Amino acid sequence: MMLHTALNWRYATKRMNGRRVPDATLERILDAAHLAPSSYGLQPYSIVVVDTPELRERCQPAMYHQPQVVEGSHLLVFATWESIGNAEVDQLMALIAEERGVEPASLESYRHTIAETVARLSTPEARHQWAARQAYLAMGMVLTAAAMERVDATPMEGFDPAALDEVLGLPERGLRSAVVVTLGYRDLETDWLAGLKKVRWPRDRVIVRAE
Amino acid sequence: MMLHTALNWRYATKRMNGRRVPDATLERILDAAHLAPSSYGLQPYSIVVVDTPELRERCQPAMYHQPQVVEGSHLLVFATWESIGNAEVDQLMALIAEERGVEPASLESYRHTIAETVARLSTPEARHQWAARQAYLAMGMVLTAAAMERVDATPMEGFDPAALDEVLGLPERGLRSAVVVTLGYRDLETDWLAGLKKVRWPRDRVIVRAE
Repeated sequence: MMLHTALNWRYATKRMNGRRVPDATLERILDAAHLAPSSYGLQPYSIVVVDTPELRERCQPAMYHQPQVVEGSHLLVFATWESIGNAEVDQLMALIAEERGVEPASLESYRHTIAETVARLSTPEARHQWAARQAYLAMGMVLTAAAMERVDATPMEGFDPAALDEVLGLPERGLRSAVVVTLGYRDLETDWLAGLKKVRWPRDRVIVRAE
Repeated sequence: MMLHTALNWRYATKRMNGRRVPDATLERILDAAHLAPSSYGLQPYSIVVVDTPELRERCQPAMYHQPQVVEGSHLLVFATWESIGNAEVDQLMALIAEERGVEPASLESYRHTIAETVARLSTPEARHQWAARQAYLAMGMVLTAAAMERVDATPMEGFDPAALDEVLGLPERGLRSAVVVTLGYRDLETDWLAGLKKVRWPRDRVIVRAE
C-alpha cells in the first residue's frame, strides 16, 4: 500500500524549492538503480550524478533552461555506453566468475549467447537504443525509490543530448546521455502542476486481457 | 529499507512452481504500471495480461520454450501502439480537459508541443523504439511492485515478437510486443539461479560523478 501511496504522490515536478536532498537519501535512491536488472546483467549504462550548483547552471542551456535543473539539488544523467562488445562481455564473465566463485570456463555458453546478442547491435544507434531501454527500466526503479523517500523526481527527455554530453565531458568517458532525472523538492507556491489531478488513460486501455 | 530488501530479494527467476498469483495481488502490481509516468503522459503502450494455462502454452513456442511461461501464472506482454499520431494526442487532450475540468483550448500549446514530437516519429520503428522506452520504465515499476509483494517476476526479451503477436492477436489490436514479464513463484528445488549471488558492476562503475 505504501508503494501505491508513493506512486500517487509523485508527479513530474516542474518547480522545486532549492532544498538539497540529503546525501544518505540520495545514496538509497541510487542503490535502487544499482540493483536494477538489465539484459543479461550487462548494465550497459552509467548514471552521472551532477550535484554542484555551478555545474547544474552550466547544464541548464542544454536542458532548455528548465527551472528544475537549478531549483532541484541533483541531476541524474542516465548515459549509455558507447562501447558494448566482447571486451565488456568478457569483463562481465570475469565479474560473475569472481563473485560466484566459479570457473570462467563454466560460463562459456552464457558468454557465447551474450556475445551473439551484442554482435547483432552493429551500429552505435542500435547499441544506444538497446542500452537506453535498460536505462529506462532503472529509471522506473529510481522514480519509485525517490517517491518512497518523498523526494521529488522529474524525468526529463527534453534536452539537447550532444550539448549536455559536452558540458559533462561524457564522450571522453565513452558515455552518451539518454534521459535525465532531476531530484529535489516541489515548490507548492510556484508549481502550476502541483495541485492538478493526475491523469492516466482509463485502466482498461492500459491493462488489456488476452483472449 | 523495505524497498531495498525487496530489490535484493528479487532475481530473474528461471523456474517457477506453478502456484498462481492471487487476483488481488496481480491487480496491485498492475496498478503500479498504470501509475507509471510516460513522455507527455501519452502512455503509448498496453500491457496484455495472459493468464490461462492454455493460452500460455500456445505462447510458449514463441517464447523459445522457456519454462517460466507455463510454470508462472501470468504473462504481462508490454506492447507498443502501432498508431501514435494526432488522433492519440487529441484523445489525451480530451482526457486531460475532462479530468481537470479545463477548457480544451487552454491546452493548445501543450497539444502543439506533443504533436510536434510525435510527428518526428515518422517511421513505425521510431514509434516502436520511443514507446518501448516508456514501457521499460513501467516495467521497472512492475518489477519493483512485484518484489514488494514477494511475487517473482522475470523480465524476458528472448522471444520471437512477430510469433507472439500472432498468437495473441496483437496486430488486430494495433499492438506490437516489446518485452514480457512472467509472474509467479520461484521453485527453489529446480531453479539453478535461485541460490546464486546477485552480480552487479561495482557501484562506482554504475554511479559516477560529474566533475
